[in-house]
Amino acid sequence: MVNENMKKLGQERSAIREIFEYGNARANEIGRENVFDFSLGNPNVPAPDCVREEIEKLLVKVPAQRLHGYTSAAGAPEVRNAVADYIRAAFGVSARADLIYMTCGAAASLSIVLHALCEEGDEFVIVTPCFPEYRVFIEAAGGRVTEARANEAFHLDLAALDRAVGTRTKGVLINSPNNPTGVVYGEEEICALAELLKRKSAEKGAPVVLIADEPYRELTYGARVPYLPKYYADTIVCYSFSKSLSLAGERIGYISVSPACAGAEDLFAAVCGAGRSLGYVCAPALFQRVCAACLGKSSSLRAYEENRDLLYNALTEYGFSCIRPDGAFYLFIKSPEEDAAAFCARAKAYELLLVPSDSFGIKGYVRISYCVSKQMIERALPAFLKLANEYKK
Amino acid sequence: MVNENMKKLGQERSAIREIFEYGNARANEIGRENVFDFSLGNPNVPAPDCVREEIEKLLVKVPAQRLHGYTSAAGAPEVRNAVADYIRAAFGVSARADLIYMTCGAAASLSIVLHALCEEGDEFVIVTPCFPEYRVFIEAAGGRVTEARANEAFHLDLAALDRAVGTRTKGVLINSPNNPTGVVYGEEEICALAELLKRKSAEKGAPVVLIADEPYRELTYGARVPYLPKYYADTIVCYSFSKSLSLAGERIGYISVSPACAGAEDLFAAVCGAGRSLGYVCAPALFQRVCAACLGKSSSLRAYEENRDLLYNALTEYGFSCIRPDGAFYLFIKSPEEDAAAFCARAKAYELLLVPSDSFGIKGYVRISYCVSKQMIERALPAFLKLANEYKK
Repeated sequence: MVNENMKKLGQERSAIREIFEYGNARANEIGRENVFDFSLGNPNVPAPDCVREEIEKLLVKVPAQRLHGYTSAAGAPEVRNAVADYIRAAFGVSARADLIYMTCGAAASLSIVLHALCEEGDEFVIVTPCFPEYRVFIEAAGGRVTEARANEAFHLDLAALDRAVGTRTKGVLINSPNNPTGVVYGEEEICALAELLKRKSAEKGAPVVLIADEPYRELTYGARVPYLPKYYADTIVCYSFSKSLSLAGERIGYISVSPACAGAEDLFAAVCGAGRSLGYVCAPALFQRVCAACLGKSSSLRAYEENRDLLYNALTEYGFSCIRPDGAFYLFIKSPEEDAAAFCARAKAYELLLVPSDSFGIKGYVRISYCVSKQMIERALPAFLKLANEYKK
Repeated sequence: MVNENMKKLGQERSAIREIFEYGNARANEIGRENVFDFSLGNPNVPAPDCVREEIEKLLVKVPAQRLHGYTSAAGAPEVRNAVADYIRAAFGVSARADLIYMTCGAAASLSIVLHALCEEGDEFVIVTPCFPEYRVFIEAAGGRVTEARANEAFHLDLAALDRAVGTRTKGVLINSPNNPTGVVYGEEEICALAELLKRKSAEKGAPVVLIADEPYRELTYGARVPYLPKYYADTIVCYSFSKSLSLAGERIGYISVSPACAGAEDLFAAVCGAGRSLGYVCAPALFQRVCAACLGKSSSLRAYEENRDLLYNALTEYGFSCIRPDGAFYLFIKSPEEDAAAFCARAKAYELLLVPSDSFGIKGYVRISYCVSKQMIERALPAFLKLANEYKK
């Protein structure tokens, strides 16, 4: 009676969400302070003060019927202008307000862009390990997924990309700073990627579009994140304020179609059409304005950096193997046994909730989100030590 | 290079949105007070005070990282509980929090429900005239649209519905109070519809699902709106706070799967899966909580009723023909010439922005949204009179 694909998607839920829900239920049983939930990328650092201040200001300044009323489908004009101005100033590239589309967050941005681009038979390349929902969104848009495995250090593997990108490839989706590895792609590998995509586009006779999923752009600990439209013309940036402003639940972000894209106006029209057909009438009106006023600001990154150092130093000392992340708020540690799910089950016995890497498209790792309180990490460390010791017996 | 369907949808935009955008541009040219924009259902009555009060309270009471963080995909548990409690108390029916799914407004609700239900070859019946986007959402979900024309008074035409609903019909979508006619379906016709659907379900050997699109539920001027799950078991209610709380831009509503639905749990799982696959991670977190606290409240309906009376009385006096609406905030007047678009073009010369009925699935009418200021209506009346007089020459 129902669509079986949808039912299956709803029953499985995402592995991450599943653990998050378990963690909430477990917290009710044994107290939140006794559950060490490292599953979800739900920022623990509060939104910067500008968010609350701006909400309060808007509530006084703007009449309610205008503040909370529909905006244009692509966003309030003053918000789109502010975003385009910000992109120009921050990255030194051209940007046009009429190519900015405000969205309900990164997942909406990606869904809309994929629906806008995808024609029958199109393939999209993802770099694994990656956010598991990429596959869901690509398939929902009617596309086929092709995987290009990252290299051993979880940076771009150009040879793998060369094999993965073919004449049926409509787009390549990359995410830096990366979820789940915390890796930031450097300028050199981005230049090489751009060269590869130019060559592939020439072979294909049509542009291979680069889709940049950028919810973690500001979350770096020293590393510089190259702005992709500077390196490759046919780039669409999918941005979200979820992490930078700690507004993950408010569902607010934007799509920026680079003015250098071939057929940028057609592309933007397709973005508008996809948003319409998926039921996205406009992005939440109040938070459009709040985010426009907070462009360039971010939650305190100090706490994340402290968490990273605390966890990374302790876990490597305990014998876990892991790359030191340059950005985002994830540690991607090698499972000490082959089956990451079995390792996570053992961790669960110590109330440590970790996400096995299988759903990220790679076996044998687990993701640890460290966007949690330092106190929780400190309370969790003895559990991690016990867990590590289990493997030393 | 892009999906041509999406490009077309984006270029056409909806007829309503097109006029709204024109109105904004025109307001910049000649001043907003000289443009009489009756195009969009964007509430002009401010949100009730409880909305601002609740936002202010939440900003103080709930830590920012929790207030603005992800909720569960289906919504915050306390919000889903509050909605289920409200449904039970207000309508005297059973309702279950675990069958409530918070959404980004009515368009999202409908898109999600249609994707959840639609299997290959499924048809969905709509009652015309109706909201134009129904067609877009049904087709995006892979369904086929079958129209059942309303009767002359724009109430349900049971004979037309009998012809339209067949063995391939998965669902029937109805909207009361109705956009664009303002009609409220009475208990008698709802009972007859329920009987018809029971018979059709028996013939088909599977339930025909009734999808109730209810953004205007509270917007009535005396008429009672039957609560459909009381009359027909296999009902899914798609509710939005856009109009009742004047929050159209905030994108907040819910889906309520009636516990009496056959396979309610499977249906709900498919709703969760559809939300996930369309990129709806969760409904906006702050407004989930605001709406839970404002359940059962609504913006002042007095202003809409005054507007209705003012416009209805004047326009019928000028010679226009129209049904007196019982709910919502639309007048659906008969075009004095056959071609409604030509009539709207003539109206535009007087800066009157009306929506021709063609996109609603019927020819020869125009929709006038009266969710505008009384002052604008008063300023617009001389223009309406001149327009009427053109047809008396």
